Amino acid sequence: MTYLFYLVPAAALVALFFAWIFFRQMMKESEGTPTMKEIAQYVREGAMAYLKQQYKVVIVVFIILAILFAVLAYVFHVQNPWVPFAFLTGGFFSGLAGFVGMKTATYASARTANATMRSLNSGLKIAFRSGAVMGLTVVGLGLLDIAIWWSVLKIFYDPSEAQNLVVITTTMLTFGMGASTQALFARVGGGIYTKAADVGADIVGKVEQDIPEDDPRNPATIADNVGDNVGDVAGMGADLYESYCGSILATMALGASAFFGDGTAVQMRAILAPMVIAAIGVVLSILGIYVVRTKEGANLQDLLGSLSRGTNLAAILIAVLAFGVFYMLGFPNWWQLALSVVSGLVSGVIIGKITEYYTSYSYKPTQKLAESSQTGSATVIINGVGLGMRSTAVPVVTIAVAIILAYGFATGFHFGVSTLSMGLYGISIAAVGMLSTLGITLATDAYGPIADNAGGNAQMSELDPSVRKKTDILDSLGNTTAATGKGFAIGSAALTALALLASYIEELKIGFGHLAAKGGEMASEYLRLAHGSITDIVEHYDITLMNPMVLVGVFVGSMMAFLFCGLTMNAVGRAASKMVVEVRRQFREIAGILEGKQRPDYTSCVRISTKAAQHEMIFPSLLAIIVPMLVGILLGPAGVIGLLAGGLGAGFVLAIFLANSGGAWDNAKKYVEEGNFGGKNSPAHHATVVGDTVGDPFKDTSGPSLNILIKLMSMVSIVMAGLTVMLH
Amino acid sequence: MTYLFYLVPAAALVALFFAWIFFRQMMKESEGTPTMKEIAQYVREGAMAYLKQQYKVVIVVFIILAILFAVLAYVFHVQNPWVPFAFLTGGFFSGLAGFVGMKTATYASARTANATMRSLNSGLKIAFRSGAVMGLTVVGLGLLDIAIWWSVLKIFYDPSEAQNLVVITTTMLTFGMGASTQALFARVGGGIYTKAADVGADIVGKVEQDIPEDDPRNPATIADNVGDNVGDVAGMGADLYESYCGSILATMALGASAFFGDGTAVQMRAILAPMVIAAIGVVLSILGIYVVRTKEGANLQDLLGSLSRGTNLAAILIAVLAFGVFYMLGFPNWWQLALSVVSGLVSGVIIGKITEYYTSYSYKPTQKLAESSQTGSATVIINGVGLGMRSTAVPVVTIAVAIILAYGFATGFHFGVSTLSMGLYGISIAAVGMLSTLGITLATDAYGPIADNAGGNAQMSELDPSVRKKTDILDSLGNTTAATGKGFAIGSAALTALALLASYIEELKIGFGHLAAKGGEMASEYLRLAHGSITDIVEHYDITLMNPMVLVGVFVGSMMAFLFCGLTMNAVGRAASKMVVEVRRQFREIAGILEGKQRPDYTSCVRISTKAAQHEMIFPSLLAIIVPMLVGILLGPAGVIGLLAGGLGAGFVLAIFLANSGGAWDNAKKYVEEGNFGGKNSPAHHATVVGDTVGDPFKDTSGPSLNILIKLMSMVSIVMAGLTVMLH
Repeated sequence: MTYLFYLVPAAALVALFFAWIFFRQMMKESEGTPTMKEIAQYVREGAMAYLKQQYKVVIVVFIILAILFAVLAYVFHVQNPWVPFAFLTGGFFSGLAGFVGMKTATYASARTANATMRSLNSGLKIAFRSGAVMGLTVVGLGLLDIAIWWSVLKIFYDPSEAQNLVVITTTMLTFGMGASTQALFARVGGGIYTKAADVGADIVGKVEQDIPEDDPRNPATIADNVGDNVGDVAGMGADLYESYCGSILATMALGASAFFGDGTAVQMRAILAPMVIAAIGVVLSILGIYVVRTKEGANLQDLLGSLSRGTNLAAILIAVLAFGVFYMLGFPNWWQLALSVVSGLVSGVIIGKITEYYTSYSYKPTQKLAESSQTGSATVIINGVGLGMRSTAVPVVTIAVAIILAYGFATGFHFGVSTLSMGLYGISIAAVGMLSTLGITLATDAYGPIADNAGGNAQMSELDPSVRKKTDILDSLGNTTAATGKGFAIGSAALTALALLASYIEELKIGFGHLAAKGGEMASEYLRLAHGSITDIVEHYDITLMNPMVLVGVFVGSMMAFLFCGLTMNAVGRAASKMVVEVRRQFREIAGILEGKQRPDYTSCVRISTKAAQHEMIFPSLLAIIVPMLVGILLGPAGVIGLLAGGLGAGFVLAIFLANSGGAWDNAKKYVEEGNFGGKNSPAHHATVVGDTVGDPFKDTSGPSLNILIKLMSMVSIVMAGLTVMLH
Repeated sequence: MTYLFYLVPAAALVALFFAWIFFRQMMKESEGTPTMKEIAQYVREGAMAYLKQQYKVVIVVFIILAILFAVLAYVFHVQNPWVPFAFLTGGFFSGLAGFVGMKTATYASARTANATMRSLNSGLKIAFRSGAVMGLTVVGLGLLDIAIWWSVLKIFYDPSEAQNLVVITTTMLTFGMGASTQALFARVGGGIYTKAADVGADIVGKVEQDIPEDDPRNPATIADNVGDNVGDVAGMGADLYESYCGSILATMALGASAFFGDGTAVQMRAILAPMVIAAIGVVLSILGIYVVRTKEGANLQDLLGSLSRGTNLAAILIAVLAFGVFYMLGFPNWWQLALSVVSGLVSGVIIGKITEYYTSYSYKPTQKLAESSQTGSATVIINGVGLGMRSTAVPVVTIAVAIILAYGFATGFHFGVSTLSMGLYGISIAAVGMLSTLGITLATDAYGPIADNAGGNAQMSELDPSVRKKTDILDSLGNTTAATGKGFAIGSAALTALALLASYIEELKIGFGHLAAKGGEMASEYLRLAHGSITDIVEHYDITLMNPMVLVGVFVGSMMAFLFCGLTMNAVGRAASKMVVEVRRQFREIAGILEGKQRPDYTSCVRISTKAAQHEMIFPSLLAIIVPMLVGILLGPAGVIGLLAGGLGAGFVLAIFLANSGGAWDNAKKYVEEGNFGGKNSPAHHATVVGDTVGDPFKDTSGPSLNILIKLMSMVSIVMAGLTVMLH
């Protein structure tokens, strides 16, 4: 049975191989006219320059944290000696995934624009294949890192001892923490960069001067396009690397602990299951990517059908094959566990559809939002906030049902303490199922920004407007198909976070093991807790909702979600104001810009975004690391569990609200631009542009960072658990 | 010792007596010119007409719920037979408190305007004394209702039996539920009414036509002034009646159960303590009100000093006298419990100060927000949202520290299961301390809208602009002094909600008692749980944060806070749009309005607000009642506790965010109007008006309703606990 493990490195290499193939195919295409090349070069340089700056900051943080973990491991002996190294590789691979994705995207945009001149279909092919490079790189690097660490740690910790399997898998969670840390910086930094540029460009360009998006006369336009790459591409890559690895690692850790006492063979299959499902998902993703192949002369409906066919096929097949995987691994409740996976997948699809319903202008909510623009920007903002808040209802109920079903199937619908581990394993494996086909769902997500950038390039290179129109079609196609992928990402984050709560308890037990090893009069009590059940720990620390420490933790956790969003939101606001001042200055001081006779100074705008992002990302990101540490030290495990539960509850709902308000505002603006309520440059249009601008940091900076925040706080707590146990 | 109880009805009557005195004093003043009288009459009629409509809806809801409770009590025998009646009186008195306050306010506004013509000080006196009418009515009616029910139930349940004291106090909680239900409808309905009118008036009047606030040419101006009364006055009155009674009732219930087994004498003193503290608070409030007495010719600083002196004196004296109360009642840990009260009071003051820091334009945050208006309305909105979210940090940390201290003092800093009841009692009594001087803190809060309305009357009656300026000064004075009162209201809501969690567990135990009484094979187990500890129930239902039902509840609870706000926000947006359309129509179709030659049609605007409020308040309010019922039926007590904790965490933080964003936008606008960044009618001013308009439903509709929502969900759960136990 354990030979199935070899599927994992194999799948990793296959994914990376195909990523390389697709990259090569894309690079063979022409970048088009000299202007197109020049603009692509500008954007590429700006993006690389920013990423270097970002990595400089992140490296310092990683070094400090690695030293801290080394002290915990080697001086206080309350942490595993491998932790600092695992942490560093997670950060490295997560950053690499974002880097490769961004590099590909910056090469692909001009090529996509150029191909689109030939046909819509050619454009789709290049953009989508470039997105696939990112998708496959993320899953390839993720599985590679997992395979390597699993193989290495198995050498040092004999896997035929049950406790060692727990130690191996919880140690591997630290590489998840590295990935989450990197991802948070990438999302926050990239998000601030891109939205400062976007908001600044829109306020002066669209609202004040009535010039179109991506107009080469706008000094902030290059910064805006750079931003799409560092935020939407590099940030998303690091983010989903974190989600992907996080779900697998959390399930492995849960597998090792849930079946502790049932023999190492049973533990082993529970550890293997998430890895094997992910490996099969890679193959299905590649299959799906090849299904996205349209005939020349395909119409819009064909393209949309082709894209959906790819992701749907992969999702349906993973649901079916999950039955086989659990059966082959010898789970007695194989089909029930597979049904847990199905619950997860279905909930992801529903969340995606609901997101689409609330944010697409084909449906009433966004149409009504657009309608309210006739009474000015204030009503657009009020109604958009209301829409986003209301839109949280169905996703939350869906995920609640999914949690109950995933738990229920795994345990034969026996709820209670005795089935807790098995139930949580069912929840966790459902998250793995949702993310297993990330190779293709990320491709459909990442190709949107590539198409968007291609449009930017076309506009700035002053190509025929028909090219821009076609890239816009590609972009909006992507938005529709990406909904499912986003549903999976949001849903799996909630489920993974639940699993991490259980991992935290396991890590507390390991902490008691460290304490017991030091001897002393309490050693036997520590040993009892180290080998006890989840319930023993829950009782020891009184982790019930009646404990005021837990409730204080819930308050602080809820607050963290808001504080973090407030800080990032203000960062965008401040940076955008600077950008507006600079763009206005250029229009005022540099003669001939608006007439197109004089090139604006793009680099000064790039510099403003770079500097703002680099400075402003530090405080909120560090907060996400320091607060769980402090809560652990001051309030103990009860406070930490409260913190994580409160952060998860409020953060999950807040993330949906911010994403959907932002999405609806964006599309309400597009709906007006289509000619409704007065069309472009009408008062209604101006009102919706304000809405869209407000929504920018909602949906692209603060909102998407929350998913990472929730998991990073859990990961930090897990890594610090040893110290927390020592102090409490 | 029990003779101390007689302080309670005595204090109630004293409060009502002084309220009557102040009302008479105010009524003696002249309402001014015939125009002033006419306008005051318009507003009064509109307000009364609306309140009648609101009561019509609310009465239906109350009848349905009372029937439901009667069925639970008389058919299923899972609830106390007094419940339906207690529920109805709570609703009645809460509504009455709002009604009296509003009646007073509508009589006071013209009189305040008229008195302000004489001097600032005369205006302050009338407005403040009218606010005191409301403050004293709320506490008087509250204590009266408590005294009556305590006296009645003591006749039917022999208080010398320990269990009966638990039954009496938990039954009395249902009248809290009546008060909360009434308060929610009043806040939501009133909030929608006032903000629909305000937003509509501002968008067309200020943004589109550049006419000032409360200009008689604006067709929505009467509706706006009516709104101030039904929202800010009647809504606030019902709201604080609910908070005041809720904190006392929750502490009484906790007192009865926390000291169960220590003898009825010990229970009795724990039940009496909150009532006695509240009774003393009434006397201190009246004392404080008389301290607010300024010499003629007082300057601004004197007025501010005088107001603060009143509230500070009352707060300091209650802190000091708390030591005496606990000592006289014979608590062995008397000074520690008093320190719990002090922790609560200090935390309230800190929250108030922080609120002031983030929302007053004397400080940097709001000044910076105003500054960002130079780059347009989008940056104002983004930065305002960011400001509000960031502003949650210190209040949450403050309340967290207060919870730990209040618990810690009460238990000698022994945390754990064994001290839980005592600790929660400490938390709960701290909330009572914060609200005990509500008589005066509410006066400083309620006098703001009265001054505001006086200004409206002055403007519409076309009095000398100097009158409006003076009422504006009074209004902004009120905003500053009201901060402490608001801090107390927010902080006490969080603490009371914690206490209600414990009451829920008690009610579950009573539910097991009902089940045991029915006999059957499980009867002995039910009996064990009915007489067990909190921990027994927690174990029975596995109310730990590892239980997925609890976590599902946390998700749903967090979502409820957002969904509720989304619904109310959209209600305001929709109604405001209708208002804008109507006001625009009048300007367009009725010639001579803008030149002041023709009176606009005020009543059509009043009708729009009335209708919108009446319809739109129903769904969100019912949701707050139905969801906890459903969660109890579907997920059982574990889900309910999760729901309440999630709702409390997310709701508390969301409420602070919405209140502070709204407050900061309001004052940023005022800061610009003072002549900064271009002053009135500059682009910066227009941008801040958009911010202010967006903030209206944030701070006056959705935000303030959340505090009630949190507690109402707890109250509903408590009342439904019997059924929940039967089903699970």
